[in-house]
Amino acid sequence: MGVYLHDIPLDQALTVLRENLARLGLPGRLGEEILPLGPELAGRVTARPIFARISAPHYHASAMDGFAVNAKDTEGALPSRPVILKVGDGVRYVDTGDPLPDEANAVIPIEMVESLDSSHQAAQNPRAPDWIRIRSAAVPWQHVRPMGEDMVATQLVLPAGHPLRPVDLGALAAAGCFEIPVARKPVVFVIPTGSELIPVGQVPRRGDIIEFNSIVLAAQLEQWGAVAHRSKIIPDDFHKIQAAVREAAAQADLILVNAGSSAGSEDFTAGVVASLGELWVHGVACRPGHPVILGAVKKDGADHLTTPVIGVPGYPVSAVLTAEIFIQPLLRRWIGLPASRGEEVEASITRKIVSPGGDDDYMRVVVGKVGGKTLAAPIARGAGVISSLVKADGIVIIPSGCQGLEAGASVRVRLYTPLRELENTLLAIGSHDMTLDLLAARLNEKGVRFTSANAGSQGGLIALRRGEAHLAGTHLLDPESGVYNLAAVGRYIPDRKISLIHWADRTQGLIVPKGNPKKLTSLANLADEGIRFINRQRGSGTRILLDYHLSRLGIAPDLILGYDQEEYTHLAVAAAVSSGRADCGLGVAAAAYALGLDFVPLFQEEYDLAIPNDFLTLPLLQPLLDLMNDAGFQDEVRNQPGYDPTRMGTLIAELG
Amino acid sequence: MGVYLHDIPLDQALTVLRENLARLGLPGRLGEEILPLGPELAGRVTARPIFARISAPHYHASAMDGFAVNAKDTEGALPSRPVILKVGDGVRYVDTGDPLPDEANAVIPIEMVESLDSSHQAAQNPRAPDWIRIRSAAVPWQHVRPMGEDMVATQLVLPAGHPLRPVDLGALAAAGCFEIPVARKPVVFVIPTGSELIPVGQVPRRGDIIEFNSIVLAAQLEQWGAVAHRSKIIPDDFHKIQAAVREAAAQADLILVNAGSSAGSEDFTAGVVASLGELWVHGVACRPGHPVILGAVKKDGADHLTTPVIGVPGYPVSAVLTAEIFIQPLLRRWIGLPASRGEEVEASITRKIVSPGGDDDYMRVVVGKVGGKTLAAPIARGAGVISSLVKADGIVIIPSGCQGLEAGASVRVRLYTPLRELENTLLAIGSHDMTLDLLAARLNEKGVRFTSANAGSQGGLIALRRGEAHLAGTHLLDPESGVYNLAAVGRYIPDRKISLIHWADRTQGLIVPKGNPKKLTSLANLADEGIRFINRQRGSGTRILLDYHLSRLGIAPDLILGYDQEEYTHLAVAAAVSSGRADCGLGVAAAAYALGLDFVPLFQEEYDLAIPNDFLTLPLLQPLLDLMNDAGFQDEVRNQPGYDPTRMGTLIAELG
Repeated sequence: MGVYLHDIPLDQALTVLRENLARLGLPGRLGEEILPLGPELAGRVTARPIFARISAPHYHASAMDGFAVNAKDTEGALPSRPVILKVGDGVRYVDTGDPLPDEANAVIPIEMVESLDSSHQAAQNPRAPDWIRIRSAAVPWQHVRPMGEDMVATQLVLPAGHPLRPVDLGALAAAGCFEIPVARKPVVFVIPTGSELIPVGQVPRRGDIIEFNSIVLAAQLEQWGAVAHRSKIIPDDFHKIQAAVREAAAQADLILVNAGSSAGSEDFTAGVVASLGELWVHGVACRPGHPVILGAVKKDGADHLTTPVIGVPGYPVSAVLTAEIFIQPLLRRWIGLPASRGEEVEASITRKIVSPGGDDDYMRVVVGKVGGKTLAAPIARGAGVISSLVKADGIVIIPSGCQGLEAGASVRVRLYTPLRELENTLLAIGSHDMTLDLLAARLNEKGVRFTSANAGSQGGLIALRRGEAHLAGTHLLDPESGVYNLAAVGRYIPDRKISLIHWADRTQGLIVPKGNPKKLTSLANLADEGIRFINRQRGSGTRILLDYHLSRLGIAPDLILGYDQEEYTHLAVAAAVSSGRADCGLGVAAAAYALGLDFVPLFQEEYDLAIPNDFLTLPLLQPLLDLMNDAGFQDEVRNQPGYDPTRMGTLIAELG
Repeated sequence: MGVYLHDIPLDQALTVLRENLARLGLPGRLGEEILPLGPELAGRVTARPIFARISAPHYHASAMDGFAVNAKDTEGALPSRPVILKVGDGVRYVDTGDPLPDEANAVIPIEMVESLDSSHQAAQNPRAPDWIRIRSAAVPWQHVRPMGEDMVATQLVLPAGHPLRPVDLGALAAAGCFEIPVARKPVVFVIPTGSELIPVGQVPRRGDIIEFNSIVLAAQLEQWGAVAHRSKIIPDDFHKIQAAVREAAAQADLILVNAGSSAGSEDFTAGVVASLGELWVHGVACRPGHPVILGAVKKDGADHLTTPVIGVPGYPVSAVLTAEIFIQPLLRRWIGLPASRGEEVEASITRKIVSPGGDDDYMRVVVGKVGGKTLAAPIARGAGVISSLVKADGIVIIPSGCQGLEAGASVRVRLYTPLRELENTLLAIGSHDMTLDLLAARLNEKGVRFTSANAGSQGGLIALRRGEAHLAGTHLLDPESGVYNLAAVGRYIPDRKISLIHWADRTQGLIVPKGNPKKLTSLANLADEGIRFINRQRGSGTRILLDYHLSRLGIAPDLILGYDQEEYTHLAVAAAVSSGRADCGLGVAAAAYALGLDFVPLFQEEYDLAIPNDFLTLPLLQPLLDLMNDAGFQDEVRNQPGYDPTRMGTLIAELG
């Protein structure tokens, strides 16, 4: 094996897989099993068209509690000229669902019948009289469910390839279909490999990686109708991986080997597949994902390839997307479902995107509907960032050959979040604050999705101006007036009425290691010899605060070691200090305490929400406005170190 | 108990239920359980906000296979002026995911490094050299995943009330959350009652009703996140039902008693609930559904009400809708999910609807998108017709107080079928033919939904004229010319270009009981003494054929016994004959043979599809057009008795 993969285009890889599976005799439905009808069949997929074995109802049934009669015996009955019938063979009380006597062809509801005893007095038991008196004629077949009203024997009840819903189970039962042919579930083995992996539940040491791809893959597989088996973690050892694949091949319809699919020193998957069968593809030009392996192995004793193997890359985002791209369509074919048509939506991309031209590029986006526009805001692109998939509302595919997209470009989003939920999403773009997570949790309980894209205070105000967010969190100090946010909102959004509503006061200061080993006490210390600083990104409120005070102190940025190292959130700054990557950073107290660090308070700052006036009356915004005046919620915020929500919800100004 | 229920409005019933449950201490989430993280948690709902316990990554990790270095040691490296570094503590080969040595802060990918041995020749093992030579400077933190890149310890990973998806499980693992608090699943007991019920699997005799509501309800409950227990069938016996409810109360969070919820002679549910606790509601003004019971019972030994009981009506459509209206929202509250916002769509109703003004009326509809218009075609309304729910794409609620809707009125449809599938639906309105079921099954395999509403040949052509269908099946004989369909299409759709495409020739004749006991040989027999006929509905092609030949024979309709008895499909006519309700009917051979009846062939007729020309090029139509020329599919049709598809797919004429 060489050091490099030989990437082929994604379309070509899918074709290679499909053609080779056809060669293996696995092009379509894997097979069927006949299962007894019951609630556990919900979600299974019919393997054949199913026809009614009996009619429903299978006899003429009364549709009411009442008396079965023959309509012609009631002819001429009128209020003034009642007809009296003797109860007997053709005239009889029936409950709803009871069969009609042979001689009857209509039912008169009990409340329209006078039940009489043998002396034509009111009967003791109105349901067991000797005679009945009726005062209006019955129409033939009134209040009768004729045989076959619902379904007629031999009629198609359900086509093949139909996922069974609860009501389908009822229809099958009514049609006398008790043994149901459903597609056999594909059996998929997931083999996690890697000497650095530890199982979930074990506390990781430095260098340990918690093995969770097999959990995610197994859950995906089950969701797509397969039976997933996770084997134990196999270390990076050619022979052990080979043995695991051989063992899985005895039972599996498909084997997934997770990681080891690249071409590094401990990447054995390709070699194992080749040793037990055939390697078809090693490397696919899509991002994330590209070290994908496609091939097949022989079951022990077989003289031909029996079992496809997919080498799934190790980065979690790559693993998830590889499964969506290669495995989901394969499972659908095996189960007999048509190709999936996921929900899609047309959206405007909120910022310029650069893409490597050679790959199909799968970009995760957050989607929101703001004032009639559907917007897709790109989020973190690292293949290791699993939280980006938690946050993503969908995927935009930038096809190979396309070098990128301009801000505002129209894109097609493959949605993870149902479209109807997006209608119900508050989209916040702006500066990050931890208490917004508390807000998101509380809004979720009220049925409102709160999605935030961190773009710094300035970025948020620019997004508001462009109509790309419902609100922006901002803490921008005006260096001239010393007042927060007012000047910035006026400058960035000159042409729109904006309400500036107070969220919380928070303390900014230096985040330093426990015990403050470098004895830092003020911003002036940043220029000291050997002090490594970690900065926030340009445009963030914290960065402006820093630059303002540095300039007042007359400290040039290039005197500060690490000034060019930027992080995008308070917690990331704290993590940098916690890990020893930096000696200090400017941020909020909560972030420091959250990671067990110390904090040197320096400034009090104001964090506000800027909300366009025309959104303030949207029903979507009301739960947010209510929460700001909810004492319980304010207490939650107050419990965060360094936060003072006393003035939360106060209207500071209307601008524009 | 009286004979009548005391219906209260639906809104009021929901309020009574909610308020009484609050009184029982069951207003919101039932409780939580802590489960170990694994794929089986997918679909469970978080019971609390979950915060990261560790950062991800929890150390600075290499993002490439390569060499870890300290960036400042590489300063000034150029292609023409390489830098050579000795491999040691801070300079070391790392695989993707390995922790960086403490002294390192960047990774150089292996393909950009020359690995050298101690004499500065190319190293034997490029990953274990003595020295490395590099020809470009590293930027600090390049190809490194800094600690916390994905998530930072203490950060919110997931809010409460969040249904876990596969990627969420990965994020929880990455954040070190291994014991997950999820909402406890509500335990629901379903008790089917009724002496006439037999379990699925048993062959029903006349009067037996196959018990399947408990299967449908259990599948619904499981789909909504509950654990469903089905008890065995309890006969109509107060004490046995009482014992079953008491037994269920020991374990259940909710008890459903199916049927016996009305006020008939064998309706014991209300009495049982009252005897063991409290009856809150008996009768709700909604249709279907109205005999609904709401109440609660005491667990044995309890001194207060513990367990709500819902009496679910026996008609299957009523049972399903009662569960959707009362039980689904309750389960969502108990699991901690916000109220469901199902998918909805605005549509035009295709025909006039009359509604009983006092009830909230739940009308099942088929939905299609035809030429930009979204249409809702009402389907069978009987509460016993479970196949109507199989066929339904959604529900239209006609509120109490509204007497009905005019054709074309705008309605809001609560969708069962996802909106995106409706885009993919061929809507056929017209005359019924059995071979359209075969077509539906084959189109389903090709990923096209084929929905047909039977409205007779004339009804179909009128729907085409109104732009309410993609195509119409028609077999309308022109009495003047003796030619099928041409005249009718021209008459009903004068102003639109229509292609008339041949589907099949089929034989029409008399459907008679096995052995033809009345020795019927021609239409003339219909006027014979005592012959009971079953007719098709006015406007259907078969009815026109009948009337044409009767008029030629000079037979007046009122000479025919049962001429006024109408059925809407061929199979329903056959079923009427099979059940003994009629001695004969006019229809196709297939319907007769399907029910084991005999057939007297009389006429050959032509069944064609009318398709507007502007639809013929739609991608949605292509699979249909292809199938008409598919020899395999033609053979399927030919195998139906009385069908000749030899000319299938032939363009007969372009009209308009």
